[in-house]
Amino acid sequence: MRIDNLQYANWSPKIFAQMREGGVDAVHVTIAYHENFRETVLNIEQWNQWFDVHSDLIMMGRSASDVDIARQTGRTAIFFGLQNPSPIEDDIGLVDILHTLGVRFMQLTYNNQSLLATGCYESSDTGITRMGKQVIQQMNRVGLVIDMSHSADRSTIEAADLSTRPIAITHANPHDWSPALRNKKDDVIRAVTSNGGMLGFSMYPHHLKDKSACTLASFCEMIARTASKFGVEHLGIGSDLCQDQPDSIVEWMRMGRWSKKTDYGEGSASLPGFPAMPEWFNDNRDFGNVENGLRKVGMNSVEVAGIMGGNWYKFYENNFTPGS
Amino acid sequence: MRIDNLQYANWSPKIFAQMREGGVDAVHVTIAYHENFRETVLNIEQWNQWFDVHSDLIMMGRSASDVDIARQTGRTAIFFGLQNPSPIEDDIGLVDILHTLGVRFMQLTYNNQSLLATGCYESSDTGITRMGKQVIQQMNRVGLVIDMSHSADRSTIEAADLSTRPIAITHANPHDWSPALRNKKDDVIRAVTSNGGMLGFSMYPHHLKDKSACTLASFCEMIARTASKFGVEHLGIGSDLCQDQPDSIVEWMRMGRWSKKTDYGEGSASLPGFPAMPEWFNDNRDFGNVENGLRKVGMNSVEVAGIMGGNWYKFYENNFTPGS
Repeated sequence: MRIDNLQYANWSPKIFAQMREGGVDAVHVTIAYHENFRETVLNIEQWNQWFDVHSDLIMMGRSASDVDIARQTGRTAIFFGLQNPSPIEDDIGLVDILHTLGVRFMQLTYNNQSLLATGCYESSDTGITRMGKQVIQQMNRVGLVIDMSHSADRSTIEAADLSTRPIAITHANPHDWSPALRNKKDDVIRAVTSNGGMLGFSMYPHHLKDKSACTLASFCEMIARTASKFGVEHLGIGSDLCQDQPDSIVEWMRMGRWSKKTDYGEGSASLPGFPAMPEWFNDNRDFGNVENGLRKVGMNSVEVAGIMGGNWYKFYENNFTPGS
Repeated sequence: MRIDNLQYANWSPKIFAQMREGGVDAVHVTIAYHENFRETVLNIEQWNQWFDVHSDLIMMGRSASDVDIARQTGRTAIFFGLQNPSPIEDDIGLVDILHTLGVRFMQLTYNNQSLLATGCYESSDTGITRMGKQVIQQMNRVGLVIDMSHSADRSTIEAADLSTRPIAITHANPHDWSPALRNKKDDVIRAVTSNGGMLGFSMYPHHLKDKSACTLASFCEMIARTASKFGVEHLGIGSDLCQDQPDSIVEWMRMGRWSKKTDYGEGSASLPGFPAMPEWFNDNRDFGNVENGLRKVGMNSVEVAGIMGGNWYKFYENNFTPGS
């Protein structure tokens, strides 16, 4: 079983077909960065059309059992996620509504301060806000997973502690391997995994050691080390694959509508756009490379199967349905 | 089994408790008149809160089997409906979204011309519009029932013919019994019922012979006559009960935001507000009166059971799930 727990591609039948070629049974796709509620619904409408037109390749995913159905019918189950809480606006009632519409992950922040928590690019981290505490409770209740990939350290640790259900960092790597602002320090990873949460490893070059030049061996050795430290069952893939996107999209991710000044995010004036992917991971057909790489660094087949999809599957089973 | 297929009360625990006292297993409630999509979602959020706080009395209804669950657990299943297509704005993708959020009935018009069809107060009836034809197809597809209670004759007949699934007039009475603009002529009722559709009898005084003074016997004799003419299996109740609503609400129903001039609708300058209910039907506790009245005019127990709820139940079974 292969599950990629974060992609934001310029979706096309080509990419859906590559998911099938790569044996990818489920993908958590980002459906909103800075969109408000109505705009997010428009994005869901677009996905409904894709599910309709490309029903031979993809299907809507709502629960772990949909991954099984996708496998049995030779398709990829698509699970919705939000990289920012902007779709709930200032209205906690929208948590329930968006879960009903199929949303299964929501970041409490993108890079900036949100109504709920602090993003990793802010200079000061206030932790979880008053509204954030209420929203965490509501997300726990309906089965909408808290994702802290772009959040600041204190906010992430507080979210892991406040949440009564496991949370996730869907796409990031350990900071001590590659000290990007978006990568996570040990105490942050520990707070998440020790509460049953998951870390998805990113293959976005700005999160990799040596960026686009990162070797597969270095990536897989890092995964093996992280497994020894935090437990292999808490680890999976969240590739952050942004295939075929024009550079205007990375500008939208970074700047949304909040800034009138160029913000380069993890890039720079000399590298403002999407960086080149590492040569061993260009698209959905390359998950076999990662699987082989993990075996080569000595992980056994059970461990590899867990990281490639089994661990996310178990997480889906326990965290997408209403709780108490 | 008792099902009331149209109410728009000023909802309160008192009314939910009266539904239980009256043995009402399911109610189709109006959640929007002139609201846009976002406002309709706010109304759903309000219902989510009521489902939460009053979970001993009511539950959300999505399919016929929820009526069974409600009966087994001593609650009333609440099904959502729209009296106007304003919640889908000019966006056909919202048909699917609103069905996912639980909406099961949508009127193609309120009293005025809509983007889809002509309302019964317009002087000229253009029938189903270009968008209307597409929306009917989409409603058929997802399992959202077309309701023509407030639509003009030609539009209603065309909708019944264009729709590949049965449609409904959820709340109205025969025009030859009480010639209100909102009541339906025989050819309209025939178009709906001969295609497997349903007519729900209204107890809103403006739709009754002699209005608030209408007798139970007259109402029940009219039902018996309608049953002989069109088949008892196509008939049910759609009381149009607007309990505890202030007169500002009937103004909202009639005028929404479309007029700067007072529109009295079925009322008049001398009777601008909600009319008094007939003495035999004041609230949900009075369905027993109607049931007794139907027996007194000679209907047998199978026929009475069908009208009081069984016919709507069968209709729910066949029309709330996706079609081809």
